[in-house]
Amino acid sequence: MKNFEFCVGTDIVFGRDTEKYLADKIRPYGKKILMVYGGGSIKKNGLYDKLMKILEEYEIYELSGVEPNPRIESVKKGADICREKNIDLVLAVGGGSTLDCSKAICAATFYNGDPWDLVVRKAPIEKALPLATVLTLSATGSEMDAGGVISKLDTNEKRGFGSPLLLPKVSILNPENTFTVSEYQTASGSADMMAHIFESYFDKEKVFIQDEFAEALLRAVIHYAPIAVKEPTNYQARAELMWASSLAINGILGTGKNDNWTVHSIEHELSAFYDITHGVGLAILYPRWMRYILSENTLDRLHRFAVKVMGVPDGDDKEKVALNGIEALEKFFFETLNLPSNLTELGIGRENFKVMAEKAVQIGSLSNGYVALTPDDVEKIYEMCL
Amino acid sequence: MKNFEFCVGTDIVFGRDTEKYLADKIRPYGKKILMVYGGGSIKKNGLYDKLMKILEEYEIYELSGVEPNPRIESVKKGADICREKNIDLVLAVGGGSTLDCSKAICAATFYNGDPWDLVVRKAPIEKALPLATVLTLSATGSEMDAGGVISKLDTNEKRGFGSPLLLPKVSILNPENTFTVSEYQTASGSADMMAHIFESYFDKEKVFIQDEFAEALLRAVIHYAPIAVKEPTNYQARAELMWASSLAINGILGTGKNDNWTVHSIEHELSAFYDITHGVGLAILYPRWMRYILSENTLDRLHRFAVKVMGVPDGDDKEKVALNGIEALEKFFFETLNLPSNLTELGIGRENFKVMAEKAVQIGSLSNGYVALTPDDVEKIYEMCL
Repeated sequence: MKNFEFCVGTDIVFGRDTEKYLADKIRPYGKKILMVYGGGSIKKNGLYDKLMKILEEYEIYELSGVEPNPRIESVKKGADICREKNIDLVLAVGGGSTLDCSKAICAATFYNGDPWDLVVRKAPIEKALPLATVLTLSATGSEMDAGGVISKLDTNEKRGFGSPLLLPKVSILNPENTFTVSEYQTASGSADMMAHIFESYFDKEKVFIQDEFAEALLRAVIHYAPIAVKEPTNYQARAELMWASSLAINGILGTGKNDNWTVHSIEHELSAFYDITHGVGLAILYPRWMRYILSENTLDRLHRFAVKVMGVPDGDDKEKVALNGIEALEKFFFETLNLPSNLTELGIGRENFKVMAEKAVQIGSLSNGYVALTPDDVEKIYEMCL
Repeated sequence: MKNFEFCVGTDIVFGRDTEKYLADKIRPYGKKILMVYGGGSIKKNGLYDKLMKILEEYEIYELSGVEPNPRIESVKKGADICREKNIDLVLAVGGGSTLDCSKAICAATFYNGDPWDLVVRKAPIEKALPLATVLTLSATGSEMDAGGVISKLDTNEKRGFGSPLLLPKVSILNPENTFTVSEYQTASGSADMMAHIFESYFDKEKVFIQDEFAEALLRAVIHYAPIAVKEPTNYQARAELMWASSLAINGILGTGKNDNWTVHSIEHELSAFYDITHGVGLAILYPRWMRYILSENTLDRLHRFAVKVMGVPDGDDKEKVALNGIEALEKFFFETLNLPSNLTELGIGRENFKVMAEKAVQIGSLSNGYVALTPDDVEKIYEMCL
């Protein structure tokens, strides 16, 4: 086990009707709130009105229309409001995109230059507004971690950023707020969670507890995602998925590990160039990546994954079992969850693969991954996704 | 899944030589430190000298000799020093007893009455000194939770207390600091961890993720405790046990559950009356409690425990499998870990069982447990332990 630091003090308030605690929880930070949200689904499902009533003692400003792959322009808009109105706290109401955008706003408020500098680490994040979140989509885990991802469409860039200052102070996790999430979003959110878990699970460092926790979370998602897709108001399924989304990426699974996040770097180039749903990109990439890296060195782990996670019967031919596991994962993503199974379906061709592969390797330091990858390797993996 | 709140912001710094970060980590709190420790093993193994060097910029006062079941008298002594010397932070160096005593000192410093009032909740904990810990024994999980247990020998009382104010600000978890822990203490510490996990695992509320996390942690302890006993300087074994001790009781396993802690309440009376090692009391009690509560209502869970945790082969006769699981647990505690297997061995007879049983039921609210227990039930369980 490698040395590690783990410090995640977000106050998680989980369960039915837990929005009612929000007014008390954020009171220490001040009266002026910037509420950030996305396309307006919270107005349709009643959450917006509910929160407005709960927060009636506060002075609330709003930034709506945050994009699915949130853009640096929204960050700028939000930071401008925060500075202009002397905002005390940012309240993100939505899924990972809204939360990530809000984190960038919290940091950008105190930075005089171009906020993109903070995302690409050209400037350090030295101060940030406090953040509270009300989660409406189980996927990215942004509700209990200190990072986010922001896109810059004009230069086809999508980059991860983070700072302990951006950890939400409080996150309200009411599974009922995900009852109206569509089949497609439930499925791609679940694929996203599984991908987060994979990033820690496929690691050169083997650790008993963290590996078994990862398997437990994967089994939970595999069990409950299809139930949530079929029965969107099944509370137990929505609750298990919501708690899984937080535990998948709050850092516990990565403790004592290298935590290299190879496939996320490969996917970020896809979303950056084509603005696709992150979870869908990950679902398409992961089984191909597994096939590509399967070798003597990775066989033990892929075999274990097949048996313990995908429930494939064990057998004498370990490689065959491992391949059956990858096939079972494909079936889960593309049949059970009914996600798009290749890039062609999304209208994506090979025209940018070379430059995307180069950027992925450089930005993600893929030479240090679970299996070291060159731009040539990554290009081949993209090709397998067509 | 029941509603829950989870908020554990302790900064865990885990791994080899991580004491070196301590001076920086505690600097925000002030210069005057009360270092609390036990019988002096940290002087023999060099940890005391190492810390003194690392903390040379600080003004350090000391309270040594904290007892294995820490007593209210030590709490009073520590609080007196804190008030007299205007201490800024308490640094606990030791195992759960030292940490628990330190937590009580942190709270008692700001309370003018008898500190026992805080333990028995006659007075609320309203303010506390910040606490840092350097862990030297993997067992109680006090390094990452907000509670503790204090004893009052003259009245045979042993009581749990807690407050979010008592959560350590930083905990240094260097598995090497447990290399010198004896076979007996390693074994009883491991039994203690398992007992913590059992308290959440045997619960009326079934939750997929938390139940599987519990099983993973139990398997980790069962795998690594015998290795640590045989090879005390095996880093991987000591590291897995150390991280297991924190994860077993930091609250994650209890999220969404009732979390009633029945058997701990029954054990506390044993330690209170006879000052025995907590983990040993729990190891003796748990298999008897399991046999006593085995019924149609609990069969599924005890059967699952047998198969998934104890590795007992499954079979058609579920009750037989469950009983085999309990037997496997007894073998693990009393043969593999070589712990005392009954109360008679410890010189304990039935003379106080009646009063102990009554106190356990009342203090632990055992009528609300996984299986409701009356004083008569608890007395019978004690009898089974003779």
